[in-house]
Amino acid sequence: MEHRLDTFGRTLVIAPHPDDEVLGAGGTMARLAAEGNDVFVAIVTQALPPAFPAGTVARAKAEAGEAHRLLGVRETFWLGFPAAGIAETAHSALNAALLELVQKLRPQTLLVPFIGDMHIDHQLIFLSSLVSARPHQAEYPRLVLAYETVSETNWNAPYVTPSFVPNVYVDVADHLETKLSAMKAYASQVREAPHERSIETLKALATLRGATVMRRAAEAFVLIRQVM
Amino acid sequence: MEHRLDTFGRTLVIAPHPDDEVLGAGGTMARLAAEGNDVFVAIVTQALPPAFPAGTVARAKAEAGEAHRLLGVRETFWLGFPAAGIAETAHSALNAALLELVQKLRPQTLLVPFIGDMHIDHQLIFLSSLVSARPHQAEYPRLVLAYETVSETNWNAPYVTPSFVPNVYVDVADHLETKLSAMKAYASQVREAPHERSIETLKALATLRGATVMRRAAEAFVLIRQVM
Amino acid sequence: MEHRLDTFGRTLVIAPHPDDEVLGAGGTMARLAAEGNDVFVAIVTQALPPAFPAGTVARAKAEAGEAHRLLGVRETFWLGFPAAGIAETAHSALNAALLELVQKLRPQTLLVPFIGDMHIDHQLIFLSSLVSARPHQAEYPRLVLAYETVSETNWNAPYVTPSFVPNVYVDVADHLETKLSAMKAYASQVREAPHERSIETLKALATLRGATVMRRAAEAFVLIRQVM
Amino acid sequence: MEHRLDTFGRTLVIAPHPDDEVLGAGGTMARLAAEGNDVFVAIVTQALPPAFPAGTVARAKAEAGEAHRLLGVRETFWLGFPAAGIAETAHSALNAALLELVQKLRPQTLLVPFIGDMHIDHQLIFLSSLVSARPHQAEYPRLVLAYETVSETNWNAPYVTPSFVPNVYVDVADHLETKLSAMKAYASQVREAPHERSIETLKALATLRGATVMRRAAEAFVLIRQVM
Amino acid sequence: MEHRLDTFGRTLVIAPHPDDEVLGAGGTMARLAAEGNDVFVAIVTQALPPAFPAGTVARAKAEAGEAHRLLGVRETFWLGFPAAGIAETAHSALNAALLELVQKLRPQTLLVPFIGDMHIDHQLIFLSSLVSARPHQAEYPRLVLAYETVSETNWNAPYVTPSFVPNVYVDVADHLETKLSAMKAYASQVREAPHERSIETLKALATLRGATVMRRAAEAFVLIRQVM
Amino acid sequence: MEHRLDTFGRTLVIAPHPDDEVLGAGGTMARLAAEGNDVFVAIVTQALPPAFPAGTVARAKAEAGEAHRLLGVRETFWLGFPAAGIAETAHSALNAALLELVQKLRPQTLLVPFIGDMHIDHQLIFLSSLVSARPHQAEYPRLVLAYETVSETNWNAPYVTPSFVPNVYVDVADHLETKLSAMKAYASQVREAPHERSIETLKALATLRGATVMRRAAEAFVLIRQVM
Repeated sequence: MEHRLDTFGRTLVIAPHPDDEVLGAGGTMARLAAEGNDVFVAIVTQALPPAFPAGTVARAKAEAGEAHRLLGVRETFWLGFPAAGIAETAHSALNAALLELVQKLRPQTLLVPFIGDMHIDHQLIFLSSLVSARPHQAEYPRLVLAYETVSETNWNAPYVTPSFVPNVYVDVADHLETKLSAMKAYASQVREAPHERSIETLKALATLRGATVMRRAAEAFVLIRQVM
Repeated sequence: MEHRLDTFGRTLVIAPHPDDEVLGAGGTMARLAAEGNDVFVAIVTQALPPAFPAGTVARAKAEAGEAHRLLGVRETFWLGFPAAGIAETAHSALNAALLELVQKLRPQTLLVPFIGDMHIDHQLIFLSSLVSARPHQAEYPRLVLAYETVSETNWNAPYVTPSFVPNVYVDVADHLETKLSAMKAYASQVREAPHERSIETLKALATLRGATVMRRAAEAFVLIRQVM
Repeated sequence: MEHRLDTFGRTLVIAPHPDDEVLGAGGTMARLAAEGNDVFVAIVTQALPPAFPAGTVARAKAEAGEAHRLLGVRETFWLGFPAAGIAETAHSALNAALLELVQKLRPQTLLVPFIGDMHIDHQLIFLSSLVSARPHQAEYPRLVLAYETVSETNWNAPYVTPSFVPNVYVDVADHLETKLSAMKAYASQVREAPHERSIETLKALATLRGATVMRRAAEAFVLIRQVM
Repeated sequence: MEHRLDTFGRTLVIAPHPDDEVLGAGGTMARLAAEGNDVFVAIVTQALPPAFPAGTVARAKAEAGEAHRLLGVRETFWLGFPAAGIAETAHSALNAALLELVQKLRPQTLLVPFIGDMHIDHQLIFLSSLVSARPHQAEYPRLVLAYETVSETNWNAPYVTPSFVPNVYVDVADHLETKLSAMKAYASQVREAPHERSIETLKALATLRGATVMRRAAEAFVLIRQVM
Repeated sequence: MEHRLDTFGRTLVIAPHPDDEVLGAGGTMARLAAEGNDVFVAIVTQALPPAFPAGTVARAKAEAGEAHRLLGVRETFWLGFPAAGIAETAHSALNAALLELVQKLRPQTLLVPFIGDMHIDHQLIFLSSLVSARPHQAEYPRLVLAYETVSETNWNAPYVTPSFVPNVYVDVADHLETKLSAMKAYASQVREAPHERSIETLKALATLRGATVMRRAAEAFVLIRQVM
Repeated sequence: MEHRLDTFGRTLVIAPHPDDEVLGAGGTMARLAAEGNDVFVAIVTQALPPAFPAGTVARAKAEAGEAHRLLGVRETFWLGFPAAGIAETAHSALNAALLELVQKLRPQTLLVPFIGDMHIDHQLIFLSSLVSARPHQAEYPRLVLAYETVSETNWNAPYVTPSFVPNVYVDVADHLETKLSAMKAYASQVREAPHERSIETLKALATLRGATVMRRAAEAFVLIRQVM
C-alpha cells in the first residue's frame, strides 16, 4: 500500500443523496478513518413526502447510520433539502448551508459530487460546494476532489457535458470489503447486477481503477484544487 | 441480447500492435463473426530487430493466428511497419498502406485505436485511419469507431490529451469468454493482475461497460463518424 | 441512397417549441416514416398567454398538424409547459412528463435538442430527455441523438458553451422537399433570408451536411448514446 | 500604444455586481472613453435587504458613481435584480431587461461576464447577455467579449467548468492608473493583498496580460462573436 | 455591408496547398483587396514528383496565378515544401521559412489553416504559423485567424480532434462571385457536387455562415489572437 | 506558509531547454530543497551548432550551474538532444533516455513541461515524460505535474490547443527571491520587461497565482496524475 493519506487530513464528504458518498468514496473514507483522520459526511437532501413515500427518510437515516459506522465516519449531517428538488431550492440557501458547515468543521479536504453527473441535484451541489470552499480567507479546504457516482456519472452525455476523467487514484485494496459492506447496509439502494448500482459493478470499478495504477483496488477522483 | 449488429457489416479492425484489437474489440469481433459478418484485422507494426529480440515477430504472428482463429477473423494483414517507430515512418507511407487496404477490402465499418492513447503509434495510426476513410468517394466506411486499449488509453493525460468517453456500447455477454481466450492466446502480452493488461482487468472492464447500459458485459467505443 | 434506417426503428422526437423538430430532423422523420417506422413528436412547450398573444397556441397546433401530416408523424403530444418558462418550471415535473411519455411509447430512438443551444429551454429539455432515457431498466431507448436547430445552435458561445460537432449523418436527399414543405407549413415561424430560420438556410444546411459525406442532402446529429 | 479601438465603438458593459465592470474591463473602458467612444454600464443586481444590510445599495451607487466618473462612463443603468438571487429570478425577465437596454442603446460592442465564473449570477447573466445580442435583426452588437473577474473567474473548477483562456488583448498601459483609481473608489469592495480583489493583484494581472503580448499593461478577453 | 475591414490591414494568407486560401478565405481576400489593403499569399507546399505527376506544379502555379489575379492578391510566395510531406520536413525549417516571410512582409493580419484539419500538413503548418507570429517583438501580426477548408476541416474526428467553431464572421456578400470565380480558376481542384470541394458546397457554406449573422454570405473564422 | 511538501518527496524536473525549469518551477524547487528533498533536473536539449552559435552550450551550462546551485538542486543531467530539433529526433530515443533516467533516479515526483506549450519540443517532451512515468511497475512516480512556461504556454492557440488551467498551487512566498535570483543567473535568457521572460513578469505571475489562493506568491501546476 501507499504512504498514508496525509494530504487529506480532516475530511468532509458532501453527498447529494444518501449512498452517493459510499459509491464514490467509501473506500477512501474507510482508509482515512483507519489512518486516524476525522471523516464527516453531509447528506444534502432527503427523500421527503409527497414526492417520496413516508418512511423513506427514516429508512435512509438508519441505513446511512450503519454504513457510516462501518466506514468509521465521525459524524453525519443531514441538511434536509428536498431530494430531486435542488433545482427548485434557492441557490443562496444551499450555498449558505454548505458554507456554514465548512466554517464549523474546518475540514482540510472536501470530497464532492461531480458537475458532469446526470442528476441536476449533483450538478448544483457541486457548484455550491465550490462556493463553500472559496480560497479567499485565512483558512479553507486545501484539497477539493470530485468523486464518481455509478448510475449518474456514466449516464450523462459524452463530450457535451463535463466528462469524468480521473487524475487522482487512492489505493483502497485494504478497504474494499468495508466499502462493499457499507454499500450493502444501504439495502434499499443496492440493485442486482448488471445494474450499475450493484456490488458486482462496484467491485469491477475498483478493480479497473486499481489496475490503471497497478493496484488491486482503487477509487478515482478528479482534482478540483489543491493548495500546498 | 440486442438485435444483430447489422450496422457494422463487413468490418476492418486496425491494430497498432498485435493484441490491441483483442483488448479493445475482441468481443465485438467475435460477435460480428458469429453473426456472419466478415471481420478483417490489419496489424500495422511488427516488433522488428534490433529494437526487439529476434523471434518476436514470429511469436506474435503465431499468437495472433490462434487468437484470430478463436474470434473468427477471416483474414489478418501484417503491414510491417516498425513497432514504436511510427513517428519515424513517413506519414504518407502509412496513409497509403491503410488506404490501399481499405480500397481492397471495402469494409463497411472501421474499428480504430483512439487518438488519445498514450502511445504515439496509436495516435498517428488513428490519424492515418481517418485519411483512409475519407468520405469523398462513392464508397467509404459508413461507420468508424475508436476502441479503448487498456495500458494505453487510461495512461494518458486527463483533460489535456483527448479523453476516451464512450458513447457506443456493444453487448458482448455471449462472447466475453471467447475474447478472454483470444487474449490468453497472446501469452507473451498478458500480464498478471493488477496490471491493466490482465485477464482480471479485462473482465472488470467488460463488467463495468456492460453495467453502464444494464448488460452483463459490453465493449465501449467512441463514435468517429456514421453515415446512414 | 443508403440502407434503410433500421437502427432507428420506433422514434420519438422531443421538440422544445413547435418547429424545432422540423428544423433539426424533418428530413430524417420523413425518411423514417417512409421506411415504415413509427415517428412520434413531443412538443414540450406552448406559447401561453400572457407572455404570448392569445391564439398563438391554436395557430401553432394547426401548423404543427399540417407539418406533421406531411412528414408522416403518427402522433403528436403537447406537453403544455410554458414556452420560455422552462427555467421556472419544476425540473422534476419536466423529468416526469418526459419519462411517462417514454415509458408509454417505448421508442427505440430519441431525437433531442442540443444542450449547447442558446435557448435555456433547449438546454434544460436536453437534460430531462436524458433522464427519461436512463439505461437502467430492461428497456430504454437504444439510440439517442441530438439535432441542430438553426437560430439556436449557431448563436451560442463558441468553445465556452458545448459545441455542436456532428458525427452522425442521415441521407435525406429524397426527403428534403418534404422537410421544406413541412417547414413552410409553420408559416408563423419561417423568416425571409438571410435569417437563419429561412427556407434558403435550410437548403444550404442540407447541402453542406450532405456534401461532407458525399450526399446531395443530409441532416447531421451528435450521438449521445447507442447500445447495440 | 496600438491603433485606436475603432472596432469597439459605442460600448455597453454588463456587470453582475457593482465593481465587476472595473475589475474586468476598467482599463478598456477608460481607453474607449478617452478615444471618444460612448461607454455605458448596466449593473444587473443590487445587494437588497434582507440578504444584505440596509445602506449597501446606496453605498454601492455612490462608489459606482465616482468610479464611473473617473473612467468616463456616459451613463450607468441599475437593473435592480437581487444580488445572489439571479438563480431565483425568472430567466425571461432577465432576458427582457437586457434586451430592452440593448435595443435602446444600440451598442456596437458588448462586454459581458464570463460563463465560467464561479458565481451563478455571472453564469446566468452571461447567457441572458447573449440572448440580448442575438444576431438576427438588422442591427445587433457586432462585437461581444467576455471579461475576467478576479475572485470569480479563477475560483471555478479547472477543465470541468468553462475555462477563461484569453484571445483578445487590449493595451491599457496609459489607462491602468485610472482603472486602479476607479477600483479604489469601490472602497467597500477592495481587499488587502494577497486577496485577489486587491490593487496589487490587479496590477499583477495587468502586467501579466500585457507581457503576453509585449505591452506594459493589458486587459484580456475571450471573444464570443465578431461580425465584420 | 459592414464597415470596412480596417482591423485586418495588410494581410498574409498562409495556404498549405494551392486552393486552400480560396476555399477558406477567398471572399475575405477579395473584400480586403477591394478596400485597398495589400493581400499576400504563401503557398507552403508543391505537389512535387515522384509523389505527384510531373506538370502538377506548373499547372497549380498557372491556376493560382489566375485565381489570385481575380481576387486582387498583390504577391504570391511559393515556399516549395513537399505536399503531403510536411510531417517529414524539419519543423525548424518550416518555422524559419514562415518567420522569414512574416519578417519581410510585416503583415498586420495572418490567415492560417486550422489545427483541427484532417490533413497533417495543415496541422503542422498551423503550428509553424503561430511560431512566426510570436508576440514578443516590437512588431508582430496583431490579428491571427484560422479559416475553414472544406474537404479537410469537416472530415476530422468530432470532439477528439480540435473542432472548428467559428467566432468571427466576415460579410462577403459583394465578393462571393469573385471567390467562386477564383475557385473555378483552380480547375484541377474543383469537384462535382455533392463533393465538398464543389462550387455548390461553397455557395451553401457562404449562405449558412452568412445566415448565422443575418448576412447574405459570409466567411467564418476562429480567432487565435488579437491585440489592440 | 503551508505544511511541508511531503507529497512531492524526491523530485525530477524535466526541462526542454535550460531555464524552463526555473520559469515554471523554480520556487517549488527551492522550497523542496529547503525542506530537505532531493531535487534533480534533466535538461533535454542543448543549443548545438550549426543551428546555434558555438559557445551557446557552454554558456548555458555555466548559467544553469549557478541557477541550480542557488535553488539547491542536487544534480543536473544534460540529455544532449538538439534544441528545436526534437521533432526530428527519434521518438523512441527520447522515450528511452527519459525512462532510463527515471529508472535510475526513482523520483517520487515528476515536474514536466505542458503539452499545450507553443514550442513543439515541449509538446513532444511532455509525451515522452509520460511514457517514462507509466504506472505499470512496482515503482513509478506517484505525482506528475505540468508547469507553465512564460513565453511558451501563453502563446499557443486558445481553446484549440490544450489550455493551461492550473489546479495545483504551491506557496513559494519564502522562495520567490531565490527563484528570481536563479532566473537572473540565466543572464542570456532574461529579457527586459514587458517581455514575458522578464523578472517583472515572473513577479507578476507569482503574485497572481498566489492571490488566487490567498498567498503572497505561488507557482501553479496542472495535475497529470497522482497515486496515493
